[in-house]
Amino acid sequence: MGTAASGRSKAESPSKGDRTRESILRVAVDLASVEGLEGLTIGRLADELSMSKSGLFAHFGSKEDLQLATVAAAREIFAEHVLRPALTVEAGVPRLWALCENWIQYIEGKVFKGGCFFAAASFEFDSRSGPVRDAIAAAMKEWLGALTRAVDVAIREKHLKASIDSHQFALEIYSLPIGAHCGFQLLEDKKALKHIRTSILARIQSVATATCPQVKIRR
Amino acid sequence: MGTAASGRSKAESPSKGDRTRESILRVAVDLASVEGLEGLTIGRLADELSMSKSGLFAHFGSKEDLQLATVAAAREIFAEHVLRPALTVEAGVPRLWALCENWIQYIEGKVFKGGCFFAAASFEFDSRSGPVRDAIAAAMKEWLGALTRAVDVAIREKHLKASIDSHQFALEIYSLPIGAHCGFQLLEDKKALKHIRTSILARIQSVATATCPQVKIRR
Repeated sequence: MGTAASGRSKAESPSKGDRTRESILRVAVDLASVEGLEGLTIGRLADELSMSKSGLFAHFGSKEDLQLATVAAAREIFAEHVLRPALTVEAGVPRLWALCENWIQYIEGKVFKGGCFFAAASFEFDSRSGPVRDAIAAAMKEWLGALTRAVDVAIREKHLKASIDSHQFALEIYSLPIGAHCGFQLLEDKKALKHIRTSILARIQSVATATCPQVKIRR
Repeated sequence: MGTAASGRSKAESPSKGDRTRESILRVAVDLASVEGLEGLTIGRLADELSMSKSGLFAHFGSKEDLQLATVAAAREIFAEHVLRPALTVEAGVPRLWALCENWIQYIEGKVFKGGCFFAAASFEFDSRSGPVRDAIAAAMKEWLGALTRAVDVAIREKHLKASIDSHQFALEIYSLPIGAHCGFQLLEDKKALKHIRTSILARIQSVATATCPQVKIRR
């Protein structure tokens, strides 16, 4: 490849290639969040990056490879902004609430140019089949699983009442911001995510025990 | 057009044209619910219907006209299945709950081949601009407005506590099935919509007054 042979030391080459790939994927994720994952072709991405199609083919052999790498990159960005910061928070309701707040902030902050990459990709691929759909479903399952585990831990820590159905409760928490995202982005309702944050907190408090630590909306 | 000149009486011609257009749009709505509204081109639809592109151009002058007609057709189907049947139900919580049940049944029953046409179209077009996005936003605003009005009426009828914020409460009800739809369709979680129905009913009951008529899950 041209870039690898441009006079840099051999030791730098692999990491430069990785960095190039990473930068390409960052643009790919943003583009897919606006135009859809199906519209993400090697040609469309080459235009956006002012790169040659053959340069891109060296990184991704096919449209499907590119789509799969884009889903993996979006998953890593989600983990970095939503999942990992919550692991440092006290287990139980504080961690469950941190997951919710991180998630809503990530939608509000528009980490991806076109809103939540996964919400858009889920609705785009939910009636299709194949490896791209499977990769999106795996990412959404992981997120719903993380919320369900956080609810289970909060029950075990005696922060939430043992009588709640953890799967149903996690599904509610998972559903509210996806719907509000639709209000926030499409209806340009700036208050939609503020409302949903209040709704989720009230919902958690409605099933909290007397010994549950206090949690509140950030800032 | 070939079909209009095929020997039928003149009086029938316009309604046959309307029926043809309606049948075409029914296929267009289903196709768009699976493959996305952006993928809905005159060529793609002509393939699906085994019709000539010129035949379709006689009905819809451009891709955008076709997309706008498809959104209007989907809106009519939604009104027929969700909005109008609820108008015959007692005003207040019974009507609010009828809207919710009709909506969830319409998602479950897969009125559209690829799940809810509007949920998919919303996420597909939320970062775009233009008349198609505006038509989808108008449809979603109408639905959120119908839910908000139903909540307001339920407060006026003294079925729901006057202390609730009707917009926030309507947004919660609007958000839950959109998120669960994602679980139902993508994660193939058959229980997702059952869970969400229970969640919405519990949420309505949590803010109901002592004089609110009893409502329950159908069947």
